[in-house]
Amino acid sequence: MPELRQNLATKEWVIIATERARRPEEFVEPTHARTDERPDWLADCPFCPGNEELDLEVLRIPQEGAWQLRVVCNKYPALQREGERTFSFDGIHRMISGVGHHEVLIETPRHNSAPALQRSDEVALMLRAFQLRGQEVTTDPRVQHLIYFKNHGVRAGTSLLHPHTQLIGLPVVPHTIRLRTEEARRYFDDHGMCVFCKMIEDELSDGVRIVMESEHFVAFVPFAAFSPFHLWILPRRHHSNFLDTQANEIADLGHLLRQVLRKFYVGLNDPDYNYVIRSAPIHDPAMEYLHWYLALVPRVSRAAGFELGSGMFINIALPEASAAFLREVKEDN
Amino acid sequence: MPELRQNLATKEWVIIATERARRPEEFVEPTHARTDERPDWLADCPFCPGNEELDLEVLRIPQEGAWQLRVVCNKYPALQREGERTFSFDGIHRMISGVGHHEVLIETPRHNSAPALQRSDEVALMLRAFQLRGQEVTTDPRVQHLIYFKNHGVRAGTSLLHPHTQLIGLPVVPHTIRLRTEEARRYFDDHGMCVFCKMIEDELSDGVRIVMESEHFVAFVPFAAFSPFHLWILPRRHHSNFLDTQANEIADLGHLLRQVLRKFYVGLNDPDYNYVIRSAPIHDPAMEYLHWYLALVPRVSRAAGFELGSGMFINIALPEASAAFLREVKEDN
Repeated sequence: MPELRQNLATKEWVIIATERARRPEEFVEPTHARTDERPDWLADCPFCPGNEELDLEVLRIPQEGAWQLRVVCNKYPALQREGERTFSFDGIHRMISGVGHHEVLIETPRHNSAPALQRSDEVALMLRAFQLRGQEVTTDPRVQHLIYFKNHGVRAGTSLLHPHTQLIGLPVVPHTIRLRTEEARRYFDDHGMCVFCKMIEDELSDGVRIVMESEHFVAFVPFAAFSPFHLWILPRRHHSNFLDTQANEIADLGHLLRQVLRKFYVGLNDPDYNYVIRSAPIHDPAMEYLHWYLALVPRVSRAAGFELGSGMFINIALPEASAAFLREVKEDN
Repeated sequence: MPELRQNLATKEWVIIATERARRPEEFVEPTHARTDERPDWLADCPFCPGNEELDLEVLRIPQEGAWQLRVVCNKYPALQREGERTFSFDGIHRMISGVGHHEVLIETPRHNSAPALQRSDEVALMLRAFQLRGQEVTTDPRVQHLIYFKNHGVRAGTSLLHPHTQLIGLPVVPHTIRLRTEEARRYFDDHGMCVFCKMIEDELSDGVRIVMESEHFVAFVPFAAFSPFHLWILPRRHHSNFLDTQANEIADLGHLLRQVLRKFYVGLNDPDYNYVIRSAPIHDPAMEYLHWYLALVPRVSRAAGFELGSGMFINIALPEASAAFLREVKEDN
């Protein structure tokens, strides 16, 4: 019989289509142009060396000589950097001026790279650069929430293939985030414990959905995963803000994230995917009851009218089978 | 400057990318195989006449002779029709047995049709059939919520092109629906008025986002539309349950929906789209503060990591421009 499963933290339901579940092997991308089959430099790629627009640059590592990583202001930003945060609320007209930050982290000079093809220390440097920019953007009093995200591949919504991630500093806390924070607070008040710490505890005790563990992090397919291979990476140490992650933890995460993405690359043949870092709203005193995490969603299935109407998903793979498949993939370190 | 707009009813924010907004004409589908260019019958289509599986059938109109419309149980249902609704909640293991209904409404015997190509009375008959099945499914005490939805085209998630819509009877009220109901209740308590009635009032008063009006319904692009041409159709008469819509209102809606979908078909060259009927949870005493509506989303843009991480959308079209474009499209009656 199919199962409806509910995520303990988000309270979202998912239908696990046990009867018509597909085997993990069925989600392997058929032969297609993989990232490492692209040229390593393109004359018309705005992120390739030689095409740098220096007036947009806000971070470059190393500062001298050939760069390894750059952060630039998005040339076509969703939000405008200059201007006041103004409110205007009148009946259906509820508006805030679209001010904020929209930055692009160019992860490497190599056009045909990806985290799965990099060294662990390169992935860790990317995470560190995110922290540096996050800390800077946080000082802007107009900014209420930061979204860190990556779109890998066209189906994941990218228009530029050169490896990059993005950071958006919003002038509001999104409604969904407010509601999730509220759920987490309620769990803490009811149980005297962070709901995410509880999830780590239970997932480790079950074991069947764990994909990888490191000293400081745990990677698992959640019990109520909403799509095939949907994966969460949580820090073992309770803290709510990604910016508070320490240098040794970032190094450890760089290694774990690289291994997990390599499992996707090797096992599913370079699938398109999104990942996002979910950190507490920056002015929220949510230290006790929120826990930051990284959520990874390969784009191997498609949302449609049911998802639009219900906010629920139908997962056509068993979370336990997704995890077992990923555990077995030899990522050749 | 870009604008953040908030939907008064759902409280969801959207970024309206005013600066880099595309003109409505830029979303017109390039030449592609349109619905009316397909054959009108396919030997291997399970929904075409001659391939009926009678044991799955739950409704046929007319009952004698050649059928005009059929409703069948989904051969590969997301939920199982037989079985008890059982709960099992223990730590992260929160589950309900996957029982419920998953039905498919085959809108016409013609393989190459679509609501935009049908007569108004055919579209109204489809809505009436939805009501008949909804009323029947509602009598099942295990069912808590009904989702009515359509996936038109591959990008909208359909695997079968023969025109059909679907009905899922869920054994839970989805979390998102619970939260929206709560928002609507709060508005009612604060203002003594249904928030959707307020939206109709304000949208009619503004006028700029209205696409069409009929005796009983209003079709508009909401002030905080989350994607280009995102459109809501609301009944003028306050009622929360689609099943309570009267015969004369259904006839009127059949005409309006057909005209609106025809504007999409003609103006945007048969785009892929989803629509969903959002009706109150069936056991909810939400009569005063909820208002049912039909939401329509053409698949002309793509959600990515930002949307995943924030629950917000970036709309690259001005709602007012989307509405003006649709108003101008001559749908040839």
